[in-house]
Amino acid sequence: MKRVMLTVAYDGTNYHGWQLQPNVITIESVLNENLSALLKDDIRVIGASRTDTGVHALGNIAVFDTHARMPAEKFSYALNQRLPEDIRIQSSKEVPLNFHPRKQDSRKTYEYKIQNSDFPMPVLRLYAHFTYVPLDIGLMRRAAAYLKGTHDFKSFCSIHSAAETTVRTIFDADVEKVGDMITIRVTGSGFLYNMVRIIAGTLMEVGRGNLLPEDITGILEACDRAKAGPTAPACGLTLAKYEFTNLSLLRLEDA
Amino acid sequence: MKRVMLTVAYDGTNYHGWQLQPNVITIESVLNENLSALLKDDIRVIGASRTDTGVHALGNIAVFDTHARMPAEKFSYALNQRLPEDIRIQSSKEVPLNFHPRKQDSRKTYEYKIQNSDFPMPVLRLYAHFTYVPLDIGLMRRAAAYLKGTHDFKSFCSIHSAAETTVRTIFDADVEKVGDMITIRVTGSGFLYNMVRIIAGTLMEVGRGNLLPEDITGILEACDRAKAGPTAPACGLTLAKYEFTNLSLLRLEDA
Repeated sequence: MKRVMLTVAYDGTNYHGWQLQPNVITIESVLNENLSALLKDDIRVIGASRTDTGVHALGNIAVFDTHARMPAEKFSYALNQRLPEDIRIQSSKEVPLNFHPRKQDSRKTYEYKIQNSDFPMPVLRLYAHFTYVPLDIGLMRRAAAYLKGTHDFKSFCSIHSAAETTVRTIFDADVEKVGDMITIRVTGSGFLYNMVRIIAGTLMEVGRGNLLPEDITGILEACDRAKAGPTAPACGLTLAKYEFTNLSLLRLEDA
Repeated sequence: MKRVMLTVAYDGTNYHGWQLQPNVITIESVLNENLSALLKDDIRVIGASRTDTGVHALGNIAVFDTHARMPAEKFSYALNQRLPEDIRIQSSKEVPLNFHPRKQDSRKTYEYKIQNSDFPMPVLRLYAHFTYVPLDIGLMRRAAAYLKGTHDFKSFCSIHSAAETTVRTIFDADVEKVGDMITIRVTGSGFLYNMVRIIAGTLMEVGRGNLLPEDITGILEACDRAKAGPTAPACGLTLAKYEFTNLSLLRLEDA
């Protein structure tokens, strides 16, 4: 038996998010189906981040166990032969049997993209939210800085969340603009349900002048979802990077 | 009567190219249909560049004539309300009645994108060609330089072309790489059928070492399609910019 870790990239446009659900196609269901067919066994992956409907990923993480003798590094090639072209394994490697992707210290980086111009550019429409309302990047960047550190992010959490604690740590939060494309980039140890989309919606309110950068402090302190901005649309969100901070846990020889 | 010029951006993935053809959906057919419905008149646009099936545009040009009293600048807004989301007018303005987009001196810039890494990234798959074969950018850039100037591009023209002359002028041709994304950018006064895709296919042959940069000279001199590289896939190609060099022709007061 071995445990194999997959780095999974996908275009979330045509999926009902990551997580297995009845009667809809999800990233997890497609991975299970194709791995099971490949290995002629009932394979169930464990995913690291349960991205929402329409959210993209450059590198989400999944693990699965198998008795197959195929070297772990070959799974990326074998699986990509079967997967639809909007899901592609970027790498596969063996990890210790006790490695669980949601129970390790990690740094996740999400990017939220906003095309800010008079009219939307069709080739960007699936991967960026569009708004013609001019956004002030300087204000958004100042607001983002208030999010850094360890805070109770209850105001930035969808009320549907069942999280035990709403305290999270943001290592970095910044906003950049190249041409008419704004990127909000947030790195943290973990995120609450819809947290990055609510951060994006709130920073947009700052960018258009409806909130001040320093209002972020009060919004955090209120612990009230109604104080933050709206949840920005899913298409603009991409899970850009997933890193495990304790690399020794990934090493087979240390298992 | 006035003539209105539209700058048209589109995602070419779901269209049989620009040009009107029976029984298929093209950018031109969708523009004609929506303009005719908007203006309750039989409107036919004249396009500047007849892009192929699957090719994208950030700013192709079309003109049409109308008796409608709507100010020319408003057409972008009115038309975008009706168009499918993979076509968006970026601007509309009145031009002299004798302005014909294919009969004016112009500079067109095409970009050909290649994702060069071990595995394709799904969010790029509709807008970049993928190859895992490592490409040497330095060699490709040196090869591109040989294309600059006025040459007979018969070797870089699909044999299906009906062009009267195969002599064209390339103002600029360069290759850049950001991360694993290679962009071939070519600016010229005009392009033959499939010319940029054959240039891209040929530069890729140089990048993988099958041709030398200086071989471009011999390929041009041969005037033989078989000497150049293959036609690279359509999805990687985008008409990035369309500029008219004699701006006085666009001015109403000079008409």
